[in-house]
Amino acid sequence: MLDSVRRPTLLFDPLFKLNSRSKNGPARATPPDTTLTWRRGASPAARRKEIFRSLGLVLRERGLASLTMQDIADRLGMTKGSLYYYFKDKQDLLYQCHLACMSVSLDALARTKGSRRPPAARLRAVLTQHIRAITDEVYGAVMLTDLESLAPPQRKRYVAMRDRFEKGVRALIREGVRRGEFKPVDARLAGFAILGAINWIPKWYHPGGELSSEAIAESFVDFLVAALEP
Amino acid sequence: MLDSVRRPTLLFDPLFKLNSRSKNGPARATPPDTTLTWRRGASPAARRKEIFRSLGLVLRERGLASLTMQDIADRLGMTKGSLYYYFKDKQDLLYQCHLACMSVSLDALARTKGSRRPPAARLRAVLTQHIRAITDEVYGAVMLTDLESLAPPQRKRYVAMRDRFEKGVRALIREGVRRGEFKPVDARLAGFAILGAINWIPKWYHPGGELSSEAIAESFVDFLVAALEP
Repeated sequence: MLDSVRRPTLLFDPLFKLNSRSKNGPARATPPDTTLTWRRGASPAARRKEIFRSLGLVLRERGLASLTMQDIADRLGMTKGSLYYYFKDKQDLLYQCHLACMSVSLDALARTKGSRRPPAARLRAVLTQHIRAITDEVYGAVMLTDLESLAPPQRKRYVAMRDRFEKGVRALIREGVRRGEFKPVDARLAGFAILGAINWIPKWYHPGGELSSEAIAESFVDFLVAALEP
Repeated sequence: MLDSVRRPTLLFDPLFKLNSRSKNGPARATPPDTTLTWRRGASPAARRKEIFRSLGLVLRERGLASLTMQDIADRLGMTKGSLYYYFKDKQDLLYQCHLACMSVSLDALARTKGSRRPPAARLRAVLTQHIRAITDEVYGAVMLTDLESLAPPQRKRYVAMRDRFEKGVRALIREGVRRGEFKPVDARLAGFAILGAINWIPKWYHPGGELSSEAIAESFVDFLVAALEP
């Protein structure tokens, strides 16, 4: 029924891969993923996005520590040399992917500024987009990686963006509480609970499964916003 | 006000430590933590627990990859040699800590078996204990580490325990839905949302802060169970 809700054996639980490896002899290079496109004439922006998706897919099967630029290139059917044209090294790729992921969510937050819609509707829009950024773009898996992998200035910049997003979500919760649309919750704790539930999605979500990204987003947003309602 | 809700700069965001290092010259050994006790005559079980807590505390400041047995021993004010008396190596320590953490939560689940209390009350009890295992015992931080760090048989055993816990939580949700105590939610998605929110706690929780572990558990359980109520 729920193909997209797979047994959580992938992403940081690479049992599946290890099992199939032991059955089939030595590990082989992963074949290019047919859901990834590496077309001639694609724009550099589109190509970067495909590389982020490849990173996300490879991260579902192995931890960051053992992952190589070669794995990411193999998955896309591109050469490692071409990959280095786009990203200086694994750390740079990881960093740019973190920024791209958070930018999508910050854009959603920015779009709610100046809106006259009720806080619940604005919160729903922001959370939906945050979930979609994690599920559609496949690169949600980077959100679970250890920030120690980034260089200190990179980490600082990313953490500042993430803090800005978290503050925006808390501000929407506070506004809802003030207007009586939400229960008088502690906005900080409620924000942590809501964002924690969402940030955990890459641990169990399998892209391309039966349950669409839209369905998951809708179900999660209904569930989490219901917790705020009086 | 909320000292225990710190700016999420610790745990995988070791900016604080890096900043203070750059200000104060080269890094020094972390002084023994006064909240940890390493008393003469303590039982081996008590000592193992203190070591798990030390692992949890050190994990808040640096990623698993760069963490050493020496760091864990230093934090407890014990010698590295004594530490090796209890755990074979870092991987063994990490594995045993994973098992200890999950055992607390599985015990809570087992205690609800055969209970005649309504599903909501049983779910509250299980989730409260799961949160307390994460916050009180300090070793919740291991739950965020990459399972690839474990050897395949270790990972298999841990994942089986975790799956058993997740299934138990989903069964309680389903029972509540069947009895009309809960909304007709998808128990799988609701379970992922609830456990994701909780498993994320080590990302922002600071032990010893002003907001007690009890207060956080109560607030989270109220919030998450409210999302299930009709």
